[in-house]
Amino acid sequence: MALSGFDDVDIDLPALRALLESDTFAAWVRALGLQLNHALPGEVELALPVTPQHVHGGGMLCGQSMMAAADTAMALAICTLTDGYRPMTTVQLQTSFLRPIAGDAGSARVTARVLRKGRNLVFGEIEVADPKGALAAHATTTYALL
Amino acid sequence: MALSGFDDVDIDLPALRALLESDTFAAWVRALGLQLNHALPGEVELALPVTPQHVHGGGMLCGQSMMAAADTAMALAICTLTDGYRPMTTVQLQTSFLRPIAGDAGSARVTARVLRKGRNLVFGEIEVADPKGALAAHATTTYALL
Amino acid sequence: MALSGFDDVDIDLPALRALLESDTFAAWVRALGLQLNHALPGEVELALPVTPQHVHGGGMLCGQSMMAAADTAMALAICTLTDGYRPMTTVQLQTSFLRPIAGDAGSARVTARVLRKGRNLVFGEIEVADPKGALAAHATTTYALL
Amino acid sequence: MALSGFDDVDIDLPALRALLESDTFAAWVRALGLQLNHALPGEVELALPVTPQHVHGGGMLCGQSMMAAADTAMALAICTLTDGYRPMTTVQLQTSFLRPIAGDAGSARVTARVLRKGRNLVFGEIEVADPKGALAAHATTTYALL
Repeated sequence: MALSGFDDVDIDLPALRALLESDTFAAWVRALGLQLNHALPGEVELALPVTPQHVHGGGMLCGQSMMAAADTAMALAICTLTDGYRPMTTVQLQTSFLRPIAGDAGSARVTARVLRKGRNLVFGEIEVADPKGALAAHATTTYALL
Repeated sequence: MALSGFDDVDIDLPALRALLESDTFAAWVRALGLQLNHALPGEVELALPVTPQHVHGGGMLCGQSMMAAADTAMALAICTLTDGYRPMTTVQLQTSFLRPIAGDAGSARVTARVLRKGRNLVFGEIEVADPKGALAAHATTTYALL
Repeated sequence: MALSGFDDVDIDLPALRALLESDTFAAWVRALGLQLNHALPGEVELALPVTPQHVHGGGMLCGQSMMAAADTAMALAICTLTDGYRPMTTVQLQTSFLRPIAGDAGSARVTARVLRKGRNLVFGEIEVADPKGALAAHATTTYALL
Repeated sequence: MALSGFDDVDIDLPALRALLESDTFAAWVRALGLQLNHALPGEVELALPVTPQHVHGGGMLCGQSMMAAADTAMALAICTLTDGYRPMTTVQLQTSFLRPIAGDAGSARVTARVLRKGRNLVFGEIEVADPKGALAAHATTTYALL
């Protein structure tokens, strides 16, 4: 499905990067070390470094880190459409785990996309891809704008 | 819905506590500081301390911590039925966020319950309650036994 | 989790039954033949007759019928709290299928429960049980009040 | 995310059409009148006629029909990869409803796509678009191959 017609929005990358490092996000979430690769209106791509702190005993990136990255990425994607941060809350987030990401893989790629922005609700999807581009996790979410 | 008929299972609380602190879980997940309150066959209750590291700029426990705690709790609940840890993976986890938990609330209570354990798949639900017992997050999940 | 404190609501069973048979629901949905067993504030229990029309080639009640019944039951459960029908829309519905229901089982039982009713959003869960009471499908949902 | 590397699969459209009209699907599901527009390896597009039977009192295509069509479409999409019908069951289906489809809209378009086919589990997503191509419902699902 093509992107949703948000083309007239200006993206302020430095402001998004500052937001990602601000206390808008809990310190424990910032410890994910997410990096903003690029942004379009209604879409962001983040790098999620696969570090030992996030690898479970089976040697793979833990699913908890992928869910946390997905939620964080969607908040940023929404901010590309709201002229800076605006109070919002996650209503629900559903994540499917398709394949594992090895603990020595380098960085995962997290792409969040707004599928529809209504007045109160925003719908989106997030893909977490391994370094070779294979889909590792796929999430759909609803946010409420407060 | 009544519990699922796992009554003949013996619970080894010290083993479950050791598991929760082992590297079965990634270090970043262990930093949640989850504590096992009690366990029944197919069910565990954990305490999730609400500490500043997990509070976002709006002053509330962040949703990412609740999702991570939910996933971790379900893994433990499954282990009450598998005679110790057995390789497993989360297939999907859907979380709804019903109400916020204040950043100074103390501890949230995370209850994970196995709804059905098949040969390959396990279905469960998780409730995150605020210190007064109100439902803050509600998750359903599918795990695959490997 | 205990029920949600809606005890002061009066239930008008005949009105709910009339609603279930009205064109509030599409004719194809009414063809499910759902029957209202009873209702409490924030909760309804429906019977879903397992008839040949709803049985797939594998001899089991089809999942599509369970999802449709779940969605319909939740709309009714919300109506127990809104003093009659009020415009609303399903935001999302997540259904897990735990075990099949045999095509000659008689009637399934569909229980929908409001977990939280906010100003704009309502959260709920729905259980579909087979005639022996075993959980066959488990759904969680968000509705928006319009 | 690009399609999943199923390019070497031959598609037998007449067989898929016959399957869609067979009693593999319950009669009540066949009453949706779904038509197979086209198929690729791992992907099908169906037309869902918006007829009065499927329109609720608010004048819109009911969500129950969209969920049922989504589930059915995914079963077909999987069959493009399994050399004809193979026993399978829906593990879970999560549907988000982004915008309504008017009851006089003509036909909705239902596109189901396999995101990953493992040995036992298949992951997919389904989009329901209104006649103008706007996304009306978005679903993700897990199937188990039996």
